[in-house]
Amino acid sequence: MLTRSLQSSVHTFARRRYATASIAAAARLVPGQPQKPTVVTSTIPGPKGKELSAAIGKFQDPRAHTLVADYNKSCGNYLVDADGNVLLDMFAQIASIAIGYNHPDLIKLAKTDQFASAAMSRPALGSYPPVDWADVVNEGILKVAPKGLNQVFTTQDGSSATEGALKASFLSYQAKRRGNRPFSNEEIETVLENQSPGSPELSVLSFKGGFHGRNLGSLSLTRSKPIHKLDMPAFEWPACQFPDIKYPLAENVEHNQKAEAAALAHVEETIRVWSNKKPIVAMIIEPIQSEGGDRHASADYFRKLRRIAKKHDIYFIVDEVQTGVGATGSFWAHDKWELEEPADFVTFSKKAQASGFYHNLSTRAPFAYQAYNTWMGDPIRALQAREMFKVIERDDLIKNVTLVGDYIYKSLEQYEASGKILNLRGKGQGTFIAFDLPSPKERDEFIGQMRLQGVNLGACGSQSVRLRPMLVFEQSHAELFLEKLRNVFKA
Amino acid sequence: MLTRSLQSSVHTFARRRYATASIAAAARLVPGQPQKPTVVTSTIPGPKGKELSAAIGKFQDPRAHTLVADYNKSCGNYLVDADGNVLLDMFAQIASIAIGYNHPDLIKLAKTDQFASAAMSRPALGSYPPVDWADVVNEGILKVAPKGLNQVFTTQDGSSATEGALKASFLSYQAKRRGNRPFSNEEIETVLENQSPGSPELSVLSFKGGFHGRNLGSLSLTRSKPIHKLDMPAFEWPACQFPDIKYPLAENVEHNQKAEAAALAHVEETIRVWSNKKPIVAMIIEPIQSEGGDRHASADYFRKLRRIAKKHDIYFIVDEVQTGVGATGSFWAHDKWELEEPADFVTFSKKAQASGFYHNLSTRAPFAYQAYNTWMGDPIRALQAREMFKVIERDDLIKNVTLVGDYIYKSLEQYEASGKILNLRGKGQGTFIAFDLPSPKERDEFIGQMRLQGVNLGACGSQSVRLRPMLVFEQSHAELFLEKLRNVFKA
Repeated sequence: MLTRSLQSSVHTFARRRYATASIAAAARLVPGQPQKPTVVTSTIPGPKGKELSAAIGKFQDPRAHTLVADYNKSCGNYLVDADGNVLLDMFAQIASIAIGYNHPDLIKLAKTDQFASAAMSRPALGSYPPVDWADVVNEGILKVAPKGLNQVFTTQDGSSATEGALKASFLSYQAKRRGNRPFSNEEIETVLENQSPGSPELSVLSFKGGFHGRNLGSLSLTRSKPIHKLDMPAFEWPACQFPDIKYPLAENVEHNQKAEAAALAHVEETIRVWSNKKPIVAMIIEPIQSEGGDRHASADYFRKLRRIAKKHDIYFIVDEVQTGVGATGSFWAHDKWELEEPADFVTFSKKAQASGFYHNLSTRAPFAYQAYNTWMGDPIRALQAREMFKVIERDDLIKNVTLVGDYIYKSLEQYEASGKILNLRGKGQGTFIAFDLPSPKERDEFIGQMRLQGVNLGACGSQSVRLRPMLVFEQSHAELFLEKLRNVFKA
Repeated sequence: MLTRSLQSSVHTFARRRYATASIAAAARLVPGQPQKPTVVTSTIPGPKGKELSAAIGKFQDPRAHTLVADYNKSCGNYLVDADGNVLLDMFAQIASIAIGYNHPDLIKLAKTDQFASAAMSRPALGSYPPVDWADVVNEGILKVAPKGLNQVFTTQDGSSATEGALKASFLSYQAKRRGNRPFSNEEIETVLENQSPGSPELSVLSFKGGFHGRNLGSLSLTRSKPIHKLDMPAFEWPACQFPDIKYPLAENVEHNQKAEAAALAHVEETIRVWSNKKPIVAMIIEPIQSEGGDRHASADYFRKLRRIAKKHDIYFIVDEVQTGVGATGSFWAHDKWELEEPADFVTFSKKAQASGFYHNLSTRAPFAYQAYNTWMGDPIRALQAREMFKVIERDDLIKNVTLVGDYIYKSLEQYEASGKILNLRGKGQGTFIAFDLPSPKERDEFIGQMRLQGVNLGACGSQSVRLRPMLVFEQSHAELFLEKLRNVFKA
């Protein structure tokens, strides 16, 4: 277990290292990590992993298994699998591990009486909150609240965070429309039949390529891939074009400005068309469309989009489930937009481990039990978030991400120049970097070869590779990644 | 910490005690519990609780707060609040604590390296399952699988369990209809627009008074109270009458048989009407409608309902989120129905702490990534479930529930006979007992007075009290409850 004072000296060391930009420094942010990846089987998963995957396959779908992992043995940036392969993990449980496997400060937290009791006596938070709830939230989840938002509704995952923000939007919109009038008899009678006016005909706008979750409400907003949605009923809600940006950004300025202007015009037109059909109550957007292929747009586009929402009195929901918690080089990806007026809702999950959405008092549900469920989150995830956010600050991890991300991006530019990779993106976005391979097949082969080199990567879109390392991914890890990449491209 | 051998002797003692029906036995199933409730403030919450609730109220809606709890100090059946009140808890976090606060076997589990690592390195289960996943599930969640079901899909909560079962129903239904034909271009093109045929016009039948969760899909099935649904869009799906049963059952046999026959006829008629409009793919029902007011129906009704589902090729989903895990005197409430053919899906959450649904291989999603999300459950909740289910078996807790439930029910009959309480229900259903007060106001007052006597109770329906003690609620606790009840009715 790393002591505080040692951690503090690590921190000081880390700062000094960046200052001198030494590229040979060893990993320091999580103690006890392996020095490098080791692959001991000719396939991943190897025989033991395959056997365990098949055992799971008897009761659960194993087709999406990448490998079977030994979390007890994993440490920092390194994921150990059932066969003893030690992989440098740049996918991090689909971008959900912030400060490394088995981080000593988190393991220490997990062993406290407070954590054990909270884990084993899980409360119904909305009715029986624990005595430390205000402190834990104020010192953790709320301490990192996006500028201008001071309320938080906690949920169980990213999908219920989306749905919670939707529900809050509907409730607040209808309350504004209703004014002081109580619910009518007609509303009360029709709602249990799922009929208007009790269940109103309202809609939410999302963007093509967007991903917002998998429950039926959030899935209706998700427009990533057909396989995510096929055969399942959906709310008839509008989808707008996401700007059709070309890369490199510097060479496509004019095209991209036009694309963003066209996308904004499409939003305004959609709002107009739907206003008489099924009014749009809210719009939801990711700062970087992740599942959909790491698609970016400019801060200027997002500022204008937020203005359009404001102008039409439509709630503006920013989905930071994947982009949040530091990986883009700011705590929230949308911090960089410098909005004149904050978003109405910001959703979070994944690397925060706690899930939910930030908002303001104006969108608190008008009546008790409207926005309510049994668990309403999980205190242990709030405890974990508090501890992680402390470590992120103490170890200056967002600066680490910025510097390491810039280094990776610059190093990848040569591969783009030589045509090995296409559409490199994520400049100035920390380690939230992606690139394409010439075809889906070559992308899949590339990821497979990198895994056999000891680097675990994730895919997105149709032929993209997305880098989603943890915030403790250091210069030395980046060098290892680039070394393996070189090997694969040489072969 | 109670050792295994001590626990085992407790168990033997408990069996002996039941055999002799000694009513004076002290609580034995969870060591270290208080002897009785203690109320030290004139209101609950008291001053400290009010202060903490107000502190939470600055960032979250506090209107549904019952009290602010000190989970570290709580033990077994006793919930300690911020002011030091010690309450006999018969609501158990909305029926979500199975074997008592801070059960020693669970605290021991929480302090293991396996648990700490699983908690702090949360996997994306569908892609990177842990090496012990098959064992943990086979020895826990699957060990208690309802008869005839051998697959389990794990989720984050009850609502996503419902939505998961719905999605599996839609996917399987459409796959059967499509046969070997691949997705058509039209399906692929329309689905990202949320239009038919890609997003098909299909429906799910639920029952008036039912509660199935709060995401927009599950909320469309929920028909408990208008305030749960008002102002939020819903899928246009059918709701049928739940049998209008009268109590006591013995005095209303003929009426109840007619009511059940009428309810079944309504289901068949609804299936017919909707078949040309929006075909019904699945029906979902709770064994006892809980949130809706503890409404029962006979095993015969449920067997006939299951036959109707089968006849029309409609998936039959049993929602055991609240009724499951022993409280009704069988592990699953629907065990008592003795179905000729198992349900297609059984959902679980709450007292299981793990969440999800059981099903069969025939309803596994046809393609990978159709039924998928980042976390797909939480390994620590599966570890917890395994440990709890062991304790339930070892300590014979379901027998405890049966005996204590019978004792409570019999004792309450005198209050029903004297007209103090109405519509007593739950005979032969373990401690899953409920009764009405003459009006909503009197019900609320009753619950408030019981709390000041040191007993925490929950409400449901419009004027019902629902008993939801833990499985470790013993004879001695029942006596305390009845003593306090006597005090309240005397006053």
